[in-house]
Amino acid sequence: MQFLNNPHHKKLLELAKNPFDLTKKGALSPERIRQFQSQQKALTLLYATERINQEVMDSLFALAKEANALENMRAMQSGQIVNCLEGWESEDRPALHTAMRDFFSDKNPGKNAVIATTFATREWKKLEEFLTSIEEDHFTSIVQIGIGGSYLGPEALYFALERYRKKTRDSAHFIANVDPDDAVKVLEPLDLSKTLVVVVSKSGSTLETNTNEKLARLLYEKRGLDPKRHFLSVTREKSPMDNPDLYRASFYMEDSVGGRYSVTSMVGCVLLAFMCGSQVVWEFLKGASDMDKVAATFDDERNLPLLGALLGIWNRNFLGYPTLAVIPYTEALRRFPAHLQQCDMESNGKSVQKNGQEAPFSTGPVLWGEPGTSAQHSFYQWLHQGKDLASLEIIGSKESQYAQDVDVLGTTSQEKLLANLFAQSIALATGKESSNPNKRFSGNRPSRLLFTSKITPYAAGNLLSYYEHKIAFQGFIWGINSFDQEGVELGKVLASEILEHMRGEPQKANPTIEAYLETLNHLD
Amino acid sequence: MQFLNNPHHKKLLELAKNPFDLTKKGALSPERIRQFQSQQKALTLLYATERINQEVMDSLFALAKEANALENMRAMQSGQIVNCLEGWESEDRPALHTAMRDFFSDKNPGKNAVIATTFATREWKKLEEFLTSIEEDHFTSIVQIGIGGSYLGPEALYFALERYRKKTRDSAHFIANVDPDDAVKVLEPLDLSKTLVVVVSKSGSTLETNTNEKLARLLYEKRGLDPKRHFLSVTREKSPMDNPDLYRASFYMEDSVGGRYSVTSMVGCVLLAFMCGSQVVWEFLKGASDMDKVAATFDDERNLPLLGALLGIWNRNFLGYPTLAVIPYTEALRRFPAHLQQCDMESNGKSVQKNGQEAPFSTGPVLWGEPGTSAQHSFYQWLHQGKDLASLEIIGSKESQYAQDVDVLGTTSQEKLLANLFAQSIALATGKESSNPNKRFSGNRPSRLLFTSKITPYAAGNLLSYYEHKIAFQGFIWGINSFDQEGVELGKVLASEILEHMRGEPQKANPTIEAYLETLNHLD
Repeated sequence: MQFLNNPHHKKLLELAKNPFDLTKKGALSPERIRQFQSQQKALTLLYATERINQEVMDSLFALAKEANALENMRAMQSGQIVNCLEGWESEDRPALHTAMRDFFSDKNPGKNAVIATTFATREWKKLEEFLTSIEEDHFTSIVQIGIGGSYLGPEALYFALERYRKKTRDSAHFIANVDPDDAVKVLEPLDLSKTLVVVVSKSGSTLETNTNEKLARLLYEKRGLDPKRHFLSVTREKSPMDNPDLYRASFYMEDSVGGRYSVTSMVGCVLLAFMCGSQVVWEFLKGASDMDKVAATFDDERNLPLLGALLGIWNRNFLGYPTLAVIPYTEALRRFPAHLQQCDMESNGKSVQKNGQEAPFSTGPVLWGEPGTSAQHSFYQWLHQGKDLASLEIIGSKESQYAQDVDVLGTTSQEKLLANLFAQSIALATGKESSNPNKRFSGNRPSRLLFTSKITPYAAGNLLSYYEHKIAFQGFIWGINSFDQEGVELGKVLASEILEHMRGEPQKANPTIEAYLETLNHLD
Repeated sequence: MQFLNNPHHKKLLELAKNPFDLTKKGALSPERIRQFQSQQKALTLLYATERINQEVMDSLFALAKEANALENMRAMQSGQIVNCLEGWESEDRPALHTAMRDFFSDKNPGKNAVIATTFATREWKKLEEFLTSIEEDHFTSIVQIGIGGSYLGPEALYFALERYRKKTRDSAHFIANVDPDDAVKVLEPLDLSKTLVVVVSKSGSTLETNTNEKLARLLYEKRGLDPKRHFLSVTREKSPMDNPDLYRASFYMEDSVGGRYSVTSMVGCVLLAFMCGSQVVWEFLKGASDMDKVAATFDDERNLPLLGALLGIWNRNFLGYPTLAVIPYTEALRRFPAHLQQCDMESNGKSVQKNGQEAPFSTGPVLWGEPGTSAQHSFYQWLHQGKDLASLEIIGSKESQYAQDVDVLGTTSQEKLLANLFAQSIALATGKESSNPNKRFSGNRPSRLLFTSKITPYAAGNLLSYYEHKIAFQGFIWGINSFDQEGVELGKVLASEILEHMRGEPQKANPTIEAYLETLNHLD
């Protein structure tokens, strides 16, 4: 069922002409707040401040049903081929990130899923043996070299779980950018003799990662250290980085796990387990897996990722908001927006449907965000009084991570944080009249609140999986392939051509490139 | 002249129906690349990859002329009242951030500008005396407590200038968020005995800042240290934070300098001068001031900030792109997008014109971005093949900061970085046909390149001022007030009301608040 032909699409277009008015006196009633909330595992989604009513929600779930959203989710988790285009050359493979953590109850019996989980189990065994084997070496820090999914997800999750760092561990760092300043800034201050380096690249031939690895190896040698004692790789089996002459250990990536969905594979787990211990990471994986099961079970608002996906579609396709702001009111999630920016925009920033036709409707929005309350002093002016509206997802945690707090004017910092969170959501929704046009708040600016009682490893797993499946559900409903990234290829090809020119060995003349390089040479 | 009544507005709407086609064979010619570039001071703007031609550019500059953009800029810099609404209660004051650095040639003779520069000179003298006075105390680190403009700009600029850190200085840190985890994460690992704390709040009563200051003071006391020896304040004269009993020194903020424009005042300079020395900061201020003069001098493409502003208006109001992505291809500018996000969105995220009428056209866009090449592995899929288009400003530096590089496959990392930068801009513009719809690149996705030969202090000053005035010019042309932020008030009022409920002392019942707090209490 194509998106625009879905019979519920038309109904929703009708309903969007007159969406629920949040500014009416009493509109944001206690009944409404209680009606539009849903809890699963450690997460509660509060969506009374969206411009929806029960009829909109019923139509949205009917739209999802007509699009076979739940069946597609089950097909994905069981290992059917979902990364494909019909009738066109494509990657043609499953997307089995859920199998990387399907270690608990109610395991998926799909053949490919079982194979992938067996693979993951073997890698985990290798990892635990490795961690035991290095205990006497007293490494205290770790640097991960990787880019895209080998960087953003692991960084976001490490920050989320940093509070659970082992006492024997000092710090974790990331090098991603090919900019040589990135590597220097990270490595220079470190005591490399106590530092592990984990190099992550599925192909084993990512330009940025290979280059930064070489830079790091040279620095180790310069300091009289043997890189082989310190360097690990996470890569596809038999890639150029699967080489025992160069790495102390290598951990493998499954072909069917895409970079931006790879946090729960060895891509994220080597660093996380080194820093926080396997037990913490295991809790995190359980959190992710439990939310996977939720995503594959319900076809109503109990399915939290589907609910999030549908609220996103309502805001994007029916109310017409071009962007989604994700604002975590917790420093632990400060890089979650950057991870989600990749996960969402690389998955659903597509114009072609799975049948090869151009999508004549909006797909993935711009995703952006910074932590609150800092963001309140940055771009909230725009959210409250700007000309455009954004879809807004606010993440909250009832408790802080370190529980070190201070009472000022009768409330703690954590209470102030939460008061601000609720205040903003209410203010955006209800607005406020004023005779001074500059002090007028139009209201009807929607948001939803995603809450947990604390960012535990389990809750972090819930959150990661919630977003992964929210994105996948949107792809299923739009009928696009959320698992490839053909859009990054052209730039790579052109960069190689420019590098040929820079080396003075161009295969063919290119006046555009030459003009830019000439301009560059003349900069003073 | 109101924006929609500007005679050139209509002409530009016409031209926008058929914008320059970048995908035509040979369109991105060497002539075009040379034609559409402009250099001023250390910056060069290359805009051949925008969908413009000479006629569009002429009309844009004519639009600016009709809107008195240059006169407004001169009025602003000379200290006339630009922060106001006509006929409505408003802040009614100048916006004199340029006076904070008007120490060099061709000083502005405007009465208010002279007063403000005298003020700034006195504070600089205090700062230099203070820095000399603490030399024997051997402080190595500094923590800045502040939020919004007291955080984002100083952080972005410190990262930009970190390469110029004095050998005797160790590290600089920022605490902004009221989330207690933010302060704990920063302070816990520090040797506080060697650490200065600079608390920044114009009013002296910013909730987040006061709270974090108290948390920091308690930690100093817990470690047996006297906060008064370590704490400085940057605030308005006679504010609650102008108190010699509590602070070792206080530096003053001018009333007419807004938070998001305050980096070159004591808000940014105390930390920067402590870390990098006055000489470096002085170079930075000279860079900013020189670009200020550029902004107030030309009414054509030599006015780099005006040129940037007009390209933004073309993309926003005539081509209809809702967002602006700023991608620095240099780690030194990694937090520049976050600073610009505040500076742009808080300034121009407005719906009301200076005459009090609703603006019936688009104003400030969403501004977002992450450093390249990392961003290429994150959201570039969306930029190349997504359904929406964005305005794109790419910042490049010919040289790296540390010049520690490595040759891999015949090119350095810095060369790879630059090759990727140019490749992406060309690929987005020209696109590429393919029989496989999923490998098709539609092209005509515009960008502009802002280049410098190196992120020196002087170039960083140029950059800061370029963006400040680009934003101001857009405000002048749209006829909005870019210098207030009434939109942040309602949330503050509601947060106070929620805190009353949390303390159990509500002034009046509020069923919405009570329903949310009940939900929060029941989270497990």
